[in-house]
Amino acid sequence: MTGVGIFIAFEGGDGAGKSTQVALLADAFEHVGREVVRTRQPGGTDLGAQIRELLLHGDHVSPRAEALLFAADKAHHADLLIRPALTAGQVVICDRYVDSSVAYQGAGRDLGADEVHQIQSWAVDGLMPDLTVVVDIPAEEGRRRRGAVHDRLEAEADDYHEAVRQHFLAMAAGHPERYLVVDGTWPPEEIHREIHRACTVRGWLPA
Amino acid sequence: MTGVGIFIAFEGGDGAGKSTQVALLADAFEHVGREVVRTRQPGGTDLGAQIRELLLHGDHVSPRAEALLFAADKAHHADLLIRPALTAGQVVICDRYVDSSVAYQGAGRDLGADEVHQIQSWAVDGLMPDLTVVVDIPAEEGRRRRGAVHDRLEAEADDYHEAVRQHFLAMAAGHPERYLVVDGTWPPEEIHREIHRACTVRGWLPA
Repeated sequence: MTGVGIFIAFEGGDGAGKSTQVALLADAFEHVGREVVRTRQPGGTDLGAQIRELLLHGDHVSPRAEALLFAADKAHHADLLIRPALTAGQVVICDRYVDSSVAYQGAGRDLGADEVHQIQSWAVDGLMPDLTVVVDIPAEEGRRRRGAVHDRLEAEADDYHEAVRQHFLAMAAGHPERYLVVDGTWPPEEIHREIHRACTVRGWLPA
Repeated sequence: MTGVGIFIAFEGGDGAGKSTQVALLADAFEHVGREVVRTRQPGGTDLGAQIRELLLHGDHVSPRAEALLFAADKAHHADLLIRPALTAGQVVICDRYVDSSVAYQGAGRDLGADEVHQIQSWAVDGLMPDLTVVVDIPAEEGRRRRGAVHDRLEAEADDYHEAVRQHFLAMAAGHPERYLVVDGTWPPEEIHREIHRACTVRGWLPA
């Protein structure tokens, strides 16, 4: 089975279980013969990986610089990887996309969600996912699951993560046709069944 | 003599002689006891130096990613270096600033000068130079002076450099109070006298 490309993004706090769900969904598409491109932001290209290093493990980065570096990663990623894959009829599954940047840099850091969203949209020249899956967990549950602190962003306080979470939920509430919110505290197989069903409804996967 | 900070930017094509003029002007301010911060974009901070590496010596960077990386450098630079220096009453002389990004990425690459300018302005949170000196040379003269090709941006064709040049001249024509255009084909000492005079008129340097 070939066909037009499908673009699915996963959003949610760190520790929500996005990686597991990305893997399960990729398997489901590959099982029916689709070519799947798994990628992530920041970091899905060589340039992106270098930007990711600057962002997550570098010294202090000013808030606007941080938002713009995320946007640069996105621009490069959309141009070199996502758009060509979609044109080739592949399924692109992306761990974090525009909403994460707006949530973490806009809502989370008081830069102005509207302005950050505008910059991110310009970065990807309007390329938005066909479906965004929000894997939702409470901030304190995310912290419990993460355990040790791994990088600068993960070290932020709970109220920051809660603001980010509320941004994802507000985006989903505003665009129900393009979003699916799943409860990240459920068992992974049950979450996957929900996501699989959403893809079936859209005719992307057989029932 | 101390006082409020002064922010002067130099713009112009590669090979125009900006570095020489930055050095001469810095000397003039230091001669009257001012503290001078000389910097450049991209690359005036540690993060900026890393971004500069990605931009000038990396592999292909998509045009929007390039514009956003320049903006990120600018944001960090404005926050960490320029603003604190101005607050401390210092003279900041910057080799390239917002206009270069708009000229090279906007006018030069058809990304839309207005959108690129908007992103750059957001990056620096509206911090603009008190005076921008445009050191103007024809594109072919710039190429002759540069000689061997040093990096990816310098390797662009003459018509690109000419579009960039016209952007600088248009900005200066639109805001004569904030710009000084000098003829880069003049001898360096004569160019410096022109710039010195502009600073005298503004009360920044004694006559």
